[in-house]
Amino acid sequence: MKIELAENYGFCFGVKRAIKIAEENRDSSTYGPLIHNSKEIARLDKDFKVGLIEDFREFKSGDKAIVRTHGIPKKELEALHENGVDVVDATCPYVTKPQQICQEMSEAGYDVLIFGDESHPEIKGVKSYATHGAQVVTSLDEVKDLKFNDRIALVAQTTRKVEEYMSIANYLIPRHKEVRVFNTICNATFENQEAVDDISKKADVMIIIGGKNSSNTKQLFSISHDNCSDSYHIEDENEIEASWFNNKEYCGITAGASTPDWIIQNVINSIKRSVNI
Amino acid sequence: MKIELAENYGFCFGVKRAIKIAEENRDSSTYGPLIHNSKEIARLDKDFKVGLIEDFREFKSGDKAIVRTHGIPKKELEALHENGVDVVDATCPYVTKPQQICQEMSEAGYDVLIFGDESHPEIKGVKSYATHGAQVVTSLDEVKDLKFNDRIALVAQTTRKVEEYMSIANYLIPRHKEVRVFNTICNATFENQEAVDDISKKADVMIIIGGKNSSNTKQLFSISHDNCSDSYHIEDENEIEASWFNNKEYCGITAGASTPDWIIQNVINSIKRSVNI
Repeated sequence: MKIELAENYGFCFGVKRAIKIAEENRDSSTYGPLIHNSKEIARLDKDFKVGLIEDFREFKSGDKAIVRTHGIPKKELEALHENGVDVVDATCPYVTKPQQICQEMSEAGYDVLIFGDESHPEIKGVKSYATHGAQVVTSLDEVKDLKFNDRIALVAQTTRKVEEYMSIANYLIPRHKEVRVFNTICNATFENQEAVDDISKKADVMIIIGGKNSSNTKQLFSISHDNCSDSYHIEDENEIEASWFNNKEYCGITAGASTPDWIIQNVINSIKRSVNI
Repeated sequence: MKIELAENYGFCFGVKRAIKIAEENRDSSTYGPLIHNSKEIARLDKDFKVGLIEDFREFKSGDKAIVRTHGIPKKELEALHENGVDVVDATCPYVTKPQQICQEMSEAGYDVLIFGDESHPEIKGVKSYATHGAQVVTSLDEVKDLKFNDRIALVAQTTRKVEEYMSIANYLIPRHKEVRVFNTICNATFENQEAVDDISKKADVMIIIGGKNSSNTKQLFSISHDNCSDSYHIEDENEIEASWFNNKEYCGITAGASTPDWIIQNVINSIKRSVNI
């Protein structure tokens, strides 16, 4: 069986940057998981003494708090500063951007619509910057139930599918005077999505590696599954089942933006053992 | 043979308004054709002494100049005022809007892209308001040859097809940081287009009435022709050929936004005579 990696996969710019920041700040704690990958978080804790605090109120004056790649709500960031916490911001710059857009557009009188998952930390943060509030949708169907002013500002969670985002833009533009569409889907996401679309059309089994709560990994799985019904979303090599590869000729592999290379390598080694390569 | 008018057709708000303005200003001249319908222009000349001047430099101080529905270039408007001409503005408010947008967006540093016909008076006027210039395209293919900054403002000629406008928006949005899409296609155009799309799917012969240089009439013909190959674009009843209706059961009729009801009625009467109804 041939085993091949997608042309683009794994760590994005923002995740690499956040891990570097964490490694440079030993004996600190991240507020919430730095990235959506528990194995990598465990490695940072073991090798760099970077802990994890889930409630921002637990940070005391003088503590060092690393802000996660997904960002945090504006009021919590302000509270950390007010409490004298030493804040190290590892928010991905591609997430800082939609936060700024939400604030500017809301203050300029636009109806802000966010395409994303309201329960995801990134969107909780982004939405909090819309001074006069924002509406959040996960699909075009939800948009159809909402009401808007004549002027709409549209932003997307960085990890969303561009086709779905465009379907929302296509619905809104002919129906409103002005739609300001901000392309906040990040390139890394876009490139990983294009690459998984390519390889999953050729492969007869697909392995998608990433945190089960990772939004961008779920998108990769969804694209893969549309092209290749034998697609599996795993967090690491322990979930692999040898039967998945019975009578298969071409195994494609990709990984979410928060999946470190060492986990990907472990998965490849495990697949090879499964099929006795 | 059944003869039926489209659910929406003919005169739009801006044209009705311009004709009213002309009728209220006897013994004046329009600068360029008030609307794209030579018969209606001849009627205004005959009944209301509203003439036609093709070069703005011919207007003298104290003359009354009616600005056509399509608007005129900014510098020509300024020259008329400077020369002491009494300017009566019959520019359609739906055309004034994209003029304002071009000026604001250009001054705010956006790359202005206009979807429309550069040689059409409306677009000559609209483009002239983009302080730092604007690019004009008639198709998505032309967009692909152009270069843009990260921030684009997109406006459309009022009479364009919304599907083609959206194809341009769909191309630009994923490739640029911000695309500000202004829905400047006017409702009347949209409603006439939807109505001709409906009726031309049912009819076996379609008559589209309007000036041969009328952009919106050409769009109606194009939509009609896609659904019904026996579609004919005529200016008035004199162009009708009886053979068009041989063995036909359902004749659909529509008219451009600058076609007066009296011409439409003449056409219907002529068709009825052709088929001996």
